[in-house]
Amino acid sequence: MPTGPNPADFAVVRATNLAVVLRHVHANAPCSRADIAAETGLNKATVSSLVADLIDRRLLRETGLTERRIGRPATMLVLDGEPYVALGIEVNTDYLALSAIDLGGARILSWRRSFDGLDSTAARAATAIAALARRAAARIDRQDRRIIGLTVGVPGLVTPAGVVANAPNLGWSDVDLAAALRSALGNPAYPVTVDNDANLGALAEYRYGAAAGHPDSAYLTGELGLGAGILIAGQLVRGARGAAGEIGHVEVVADGPLCACGRRGCLEAVAGTAAIVRRIDPDNTEEALRDLDPEVAEIARRAKAGDKVVVDALTEIGGLLGRGVAVLANVLNPSLIVLGGHYVPLAAWLLPSAQAELNRRVIAPDAGGCRLAVSELAHSAAASGGAASVLDAVDYAKLSV
Amino acid sequence: MPTGPNPADFAVVRATNLAVVLRHVHANAPCSRADIAAETGLNKATVSSLVADLIDRRLLRETGLTERRIGRPATMLVLDGEPYVALGIEVNTDYLALSAIDLGGARILSWRRSFDGLDSTAARAATAIAALARRAAARIDRQDRRIIGLTVGVPGLVTPAGVVANAPNLGWSDVDLAAALRSALGNPAYPVTVDNDANLGALAEYRYGAAAGHPDSAYLTGELGLGAGILIAGQLVRGARGAAGEIGHVEVVADGPLCACGRRGCLEAVAGTAAIVRRIDPDNTEEALRDLDPEVAEIARRAKAGDKVVVDALTEIGGLLGRGVAVLANVLNPSLIVLGGHYVPLAAWLLPSAQAELNRRVIAPDAGGCRLAVSELAHSAAASGGAASVLDAVDYAKLSV
Repeated sequence: MPTGPNPADFAVVRATNLAVVLRHVHANAPCSRADIAAETGLNKATVSSLVADLIDRRLLRETGLTERRIGRPATMLVLDGEPYVALGIEVNTDYLALSAIDLGGARILSWRRSFDGLDSTAARAATAIAALARRAAARIDRQDRRIIGLTVGVPGLVTPAGVVANAPNLGWSDVDLAAALRSALGNPAYPVTVDNDANLGALAEYRYGAAAGHPDSAYLTGELGLGAGILIAGQLVRGARGAAGEIGHVEVVADGPLCACGRRGCLEAVAGTAAIVRRIDPDNTEEALRDLDPEVAEIARRAKAGDKVVVDALTEIGGLLGRGVAVLANVLNPSLIVLGGHYVPLAAWLLPSAQAELNRRVIAPDAGGCRLAVSELAHSAAASGGAASVLDAVDYAKLSV
Repeated sequence: MPTGPNPADFAVVRATNLAVVLRHVHANAPCSRADIAAETGLNKATVSSLVADLIDRRLLRETGLTERRIGRPATMLVLDGEPYVALGIEVNTDYLALSAIDLGGARILSWRRSFDGLDSTAARAATAIAALARRAAARIDRQDRRIIGLTVGVPGLVTPAGVVANAPNLGWSDVDLAAALRSALGNPAYPVTVDNDANLGALAEYRYGAAAGHPDSAYLTGELGLGAGILIAGQLVRGARGAAGEIGHVEVVADGPLCACGRRGCLEAVAGTAAIVRRIDPDNTEEALRDLDPEVAEIARRAKAGDKVVVDALTEIGGLLGRGVAVLANVLNPSLIVLGGHYVPLAAWLLPSAQAELNRRVIAPDAGGCRLAVSELAHSAAASGGAASVLDAVDYAKLSV
């Protein structure tokens, strides 16, 4: 039965209002105290007191900016958030990447190290991911900052509950990676989640990279595997069971080469990184797939030197890539499709034929305005997207208790 | 400068609150006055007065339902809305369809008449659409009801501003159909908008048909043209320029038959209604395309009678349809794909091979849970979706003034 208010109620109201102010600044920064009052319905004295509290906790800070308006110029507020750090890690077949971004949006750490994902079990991968997370945590602790969450990107199907249902290139199926990581990290106070690498890459390119200003866009991973992350109206498309974005396994060449998935002629099998390496350096493929960076760098070097075999192969593969992305463009009409990962150093030779094929195959005039672009984040996209997804999920009410 | 409240302010506040109550009942019906008060923050006396007003205007009505809760049973409220009617019309190559649905969700009119869209100009089509709308309006007027909006579905690319950029099967490009209709209807007080037929069909199947409970789903029109309407989390996917859903022009057979769009091997060219008619009744195709109903009925009759040529052809075309919808399933992971229009009477022979091919081609286990289903609305889907889109856009604040 309801009773009169007691001090605990006031504490709850204050925590709620602190969260309201933080969320408002997160969405609308820079903004003034008066803006916050006008748009949240809180009165100005309350807003001033809440802002003072949030500045004390280094969740907000004042900037020198002022707004032109009638009367006195106002001091503008932005998120500070320096003490609060979001972690993202990507595990892939040939590397681990880590990204740490603070609540104010500043990038603190960006690491990448080689990792033999092709020969690792899920348990060994969890150990390696946890070791990397602990190294970052130690550094963040020394700076008197606090980790507020970790999201790990995986090249495979991840269920809404965060279980890796299937990651064919890693050889994993039905792996509860989030649980394994929580355990390996000693059940940390922050949330640990798992998502598809392409989804996280799409989010990162939209927030920090080539897809800024493109709420309808897609991102192709360009790792050993080939997946797409899809944004519609700025929201990730996950599908009914979290399996959206499998452009890598759309058939683009009937009875084409065998794909790792067991089908034939999949986009991944004809235009994925392994297909590029196999086509250009067929003698050395199996070793090359374990460590793609030097292999891709060598292909780019030869293309740059004008090696006709390499340039012709990349031009042809670009055309096949164009067939695949034309499917995305016909079905979803994005304004931008970003090529990521190992496509980045090869983009100069892949992109022109891919864009031409895209334009030919899309029924909407001018390919519906769809343009191909190169990732600005390369192999750090999924890890950055992991950190971004932590920042998106921040519970400001908890942070401000 | 702000001054004290005056009577006009109170009227604005009351209109706003009436709209808040209507929107709440629209989203949560059936609900009690106490529910409304608890969830809107309005006090109970205010809610009672607002509800009385809305019942007077026949926007709400009481039902006999009561809620089990502590204390007295509560009278439950639902939308009445009988006096307010939403109109949807579809124009296609061989028919016009009209659907009228009142604000309470009751279907009032469902008409379909043949129409020679292949030989009509956009101006003649606008005249025919307006004539149909006027006939409905006359009937609705006689019942003392009021039209609150008209949305027209068109088989083509429609820009966000409602201009038909391109409707290849109708031979239209850059047609401002909404403006033409407004003029032909004497600039009515209600809004007139235009949308893609597949989008409206997807919306209708989700609200009233086979896709109920499937917020991640797609709908294939199955008219002379073949388009998809796509829902993600219950929202229509339109794309950056409104050109999403062009599954009909994804290539499924390399160097396949010529498509109306000028490309080869498009899904529409190998598994659209015209392809089915051409395959089964090649001597009579051009006449048959003008009036598809009897042609499709004859094909269904022959299949039902066990005509092996027809059954084999439909089984093979079902497989090609499966290739096409596998693209949607790999990219979007819907839980349901609905086959509409002329596919409905042929579904018994198309569906099994289509589902089998879908299952083979989708990388997620069990095709990511994606099932093919038959439209429950057939050729009235887009018209019903037009009415649904009017109901979704109702400005309750205006309605309650």
